[in-house]
Amino acid sequence: MAKNTQTTLMQKARASGSIDTFELTCLLWGKERIVKERRAAFKRVEKALGTYDSTKLPRCYSETSREDLFEQGLEMGKACLDDMLEHNHEHFVWVTPRYNLVNASPFGHKAVLFEPAMEHNGTEEQKAQWLPLARSGKILGTYAQTELGHGSFVRGIETTATFDPDSDEFVIHSPTISSTNFWPAGLGFSTTHGAVMARLIAGGQDQGPHIFLVQLRSLEDGKPMPGIKMGDVGLKLGYNESDNGFASFDQVRIPRSQMLMTHSQLARDGTFTKDPLLAKLSYSVMLLVRGRMPGIFTVQLAQALTIATRYSVVRQQGLGPADALNTEARIFQYKHQHFRLMSMIAKTYAMFFGSRVCDDQYNELREMQSKDDHSLLPSVHALTAGMKAYVTSEAADGAEDARKLCGGHGYMSISGLPEIVGALTGGATFEGENCVLWQQIGRHLLKQLDRLQDGEPIEPQVQYLADVEDPNIACSAFGTQFLDPEVQLTIYRDRAHRLVVKAHSAI
Amino acid sequence: MAKNTQTTLMQKARASGSIDTFELTCLLWGKERIVKERRAAFKRVEKALGTYDSTKLPRCYSETSREDLFEQGLEMGKACLDDMLEHNHEHFVWVTPRYNLVNASPFGHKAVLFEPAMEHNGTEEQKAQWLPLARSGKILGTYAQTELGHGSFVRGIETTATFDPDSDEFVIHSPTISSTNFWPAGLGFSTTHGAVMARLIAGGQDQGPHIFLVQLRSLEDGKPMPGIKMGDVGLKLGYNESDNGFASFDQVRIPRSQMLMTHSQLARDGTFTKDPLLAKLSYSVMLLVRGRMPGIFTVQLAQALTIATRYSVVRQQGLGPADALNTEARIFQYKHQHFRLMSMIAKTYAMFFGSRVCDDQYNELREMQSKDDHSLLPSVHALTAGMKAYVTSEAADGAEDARKLCGGHGYMSISGLPEIVGALTGGATFEGENCVLWQQIGRHLLKQLDRLQDGEPIEPQVQYLADVEDPNIACSAFGTQFLDPEVQLTIYRDRAHRLVVKAHSAI
Repeated sequence: MAKNTQTTLMQKARASGSIDTFELTCLLWGKERIVKERRAAFKRVEKALGTYDSTKLPRCYSETSREDLFEQGLEMGKACLDDMLEHNHEHFVWVTPRYNLVNASPFGHKAVLFEPAMEHNGTEEQKAQWLPLARSGKILGTYAQTELGHGSFVRGIETTATFDPDSDEFVIHSPTISSTNFWPAGLGFSTTHGAVMARLIAGGQDQGPHIFLVQLRSLEDGKPMPGIKMGDVGLKLGYNESDNGFASFDQVRIPRSQMLMTHSQLARDGTFTKDPLLAKLSYSVMLLVRGRMPGIFTVQLAQALTIATRYSVVRQQGLGPADALNTEARIFQYKHQHFRLMSMIAKTYAMFFGSRVCDDQYNELREMQSKDDHSLLPSVHALTAGMKAYVTSEAADGAEDARKLCGGHGYMSISGLPEIVGALTGGATFEGENCVLWQQIGRHLLKQLDRLQDGEPIEPQVQYLADVEDPNIACSAFGTQFLDPEVQLTIYRDRAHRLVVKAHSAI
Repeated sequence: MAKNTQTTLMQKARASGSIDTFELTCLLWGKERIVKERRAAFKRVEKALGTYDSTKLPRCYSETSREDLFEQGLEMGKACLDDMLEHNHEHFVWVTPRYNLVNASPFGHKAVLFEPAMEHNGTEEQKAQWLPLARSGKILGTYAQTELGHGSFVRGIETTATFDPDSDEFVIHSPTISSTNFWPAGLGFSTTHGAVMARLIAGGQDQGPHIFLVQLRSLEDGKPMPGIKMGDVGLKLGYNESDNGFASFDQVRIPRSQMLMTHSQLARDGTFTKDPLLAKLSYSVMLLVRGRMPGIFTVQLAQALTIATRYSVVRQQGLGPADALNTEARIFQYKHQHFRLMSMIAKTYAMFFGSRVCDDQYNELREMQSKDDHSLLPSVHALTAGMKAYVTSEAADGAEDARKLCGGHGYMSISGLPEIVGALTGGATFEGENCVLWQQIGRHLLKQLDRLQDGEPIEPQVQYLADVEDPNIACSAFGTQFLDPEVQLTIYRDRAHRLVVKAHSAI
């Protein structure tokens, strides 16, 4: 690399660090083996895409039309799938090699929503028939729940699946414009099959939303199947590499066997049966994605902060704190630049390790649910709702602040920051709107306090509500005692307790 | 228009309003005549561009490559200039017909920086020679101050203008990569002339930054003049209709007469003279743009809030506060949606009228400066710094919140919101980085308190620092008295006084 003031400043900064970065990376991702395998996989895919040479500007900064970006997303998604199939790993199930949420490609719903929807809701027979096709990429699926007029409010969904006992088929139909399926990843041009949420109508009875497997496109020529109108929703603030799409169904027929029937069943004679307890399981697909978002968003925030930190180390501007006239100061030397970066980096580590707890709790829930124990559902729901809302807010605001810390250069696309900010700001909305999720974690906490006051048992996660003796007595630590994690934990518990009690008494 | 649930809800909402919107518009823009003339001008330009029919999607949502957007910006800028010349008005000096800052076209610096730089710094002879060419569009100018390595820190600028007494010329030169001129609007492909900031070197002496008029491109074929390397800075978070550019000068010669010489002069024999008092005038060009930004950013925030309000009136989601099962609620009925919209709309009106004070103060400063009275400069500098930082922050955050209030639909480009947010977030950086400006208004206020405590006179704008008798006595109003503007003003004065005193004693 050419030697100039900036490269010299960067080398100096790097040489002055005392942290073993590889050791830290292994700590973050759990095992040295995982880190090495991930890096090897990232390298193979970047090489396959011709983007491994980081001294060359990636195509996305010169070929910027909607069509160009979609093509790049398609190439990225296919290269990732090919690599996972060939090398038998799952490193790109959730993220692209650039740590974008996998939504950033037309393969966005394949392994994180379509296949789990099948796994959680399909019968053994259905799973045996469809999962091998989906996993091997012979069909490409999307999870089609949201409609033009209906977002996360599933009960409002209008699409119907009417049982026709004569032909033993369902008729999938979009009765209004507002019932048009809207947003599913890859629906625009790419996906062949959809797990479509529709109201089951049998014998004139509306049995509420259920999931139906619908073939959307011909496997021969990719054209929409008869009766389905489809297209792209258009340019977005981010994720333009994916063809989030719309679909409208005009009396589309599918065999009865394509309703996912683990939790509810429709018999040949039109008899409907439902296990209300098992129905809770279908909700856990939403929890899966919501629970994984904190970990992914935290890493994208870390990317933004890394860019801003590097920039701050090499960018010189003004006379600096020393008011020295002979050279301009590196902007990292300014107190407000330093403080904003450092406090956000600290928060990012905290959120990263917090997201691990989210993952573990979700895995435990699934493990227990497989043994018919659903008792963890309320607390995992509350935890993922709170973590998703908190981390996506902090990540979007933090990345935007990192962008501002780079001044005009952060406004340029080649800084990478506008794309990161654009992707992160979407997180406040999808997989549960944050304001709604805040209300859900709030309701859960207030309910736990109710239970405590009524002498009923509470969730182990909020045991602190019972443990704190007097919320009005301040923490008695002094000086360096504040560095003790136990003291810090006590402070957080006290604070959480005080705030929950305050909110509870204010209502 | 087709009649459906949404159009019906909108008609109902509009019919229920009690405000005369035209009267309100006239109040906002000052006079009925102005409103009518503006609207007529907007209509003519939109018609000329073929975008007047608002039921058709504008080109910017389908033709989205960098080249397409630049072409659209060029057409918009030219249509605006043609209309102003033909109909003799100034409605598009600062904004496009879509209320974007004029930066959004390659004509971005013409009337707001290039011509004012000439007016403020050129001699009568220079103005007579160049202003008619600039104003009529025979040449297209840009204000070229920022360099790749140097933003708002003018003293750090590296470009040199070395006087050659033999030929009576200046040699304009970019000695390093970091001295490359960077960012000026239209510099990429469009502008023919630049008001270039460069260090004046005469007789081996560095006399600091001065402004030089440099021809950048041939008026015949638009090609760069010999010795000048130019291009576009690339894709940005916003303003992609403009070719913000870079330029590097390799020993480019211009006649001595092209240094703007009102405040400093270089004689034929190389003698340098400078009027330190008059030199303050050159700074007022920066104040001009900074002072106008609050008004423009406020209107763009108002656009975002208008979109979000309309959406909230027609979007139905969930069961609503009444938990009524027969119909979904309009999201405007939810308390948090209602509160966020209403409080931001109120703030927007306050900032709009506040920006008027900014304009008036700037005009008064210019009026007094024309009579050699520069006494208003410190207070106008502080006012514009504070207003610019406050309004651009509030506008960017408010528009992003408006975008979130529209859920997934706010993530789509056709909502108009991503473009508004992208443009507004740039405002934290250009024309003075907000963190730097906060420090400047802070320093001004603390200095005024120093003066007060030393028994010296203070600026009339901060008279409240002297007037409040005891900052510890709370406002004694009750109930509806809080609706009295005088009471509200007292509260704001008390609060400002208390905060300034607190900050002063903390340092």
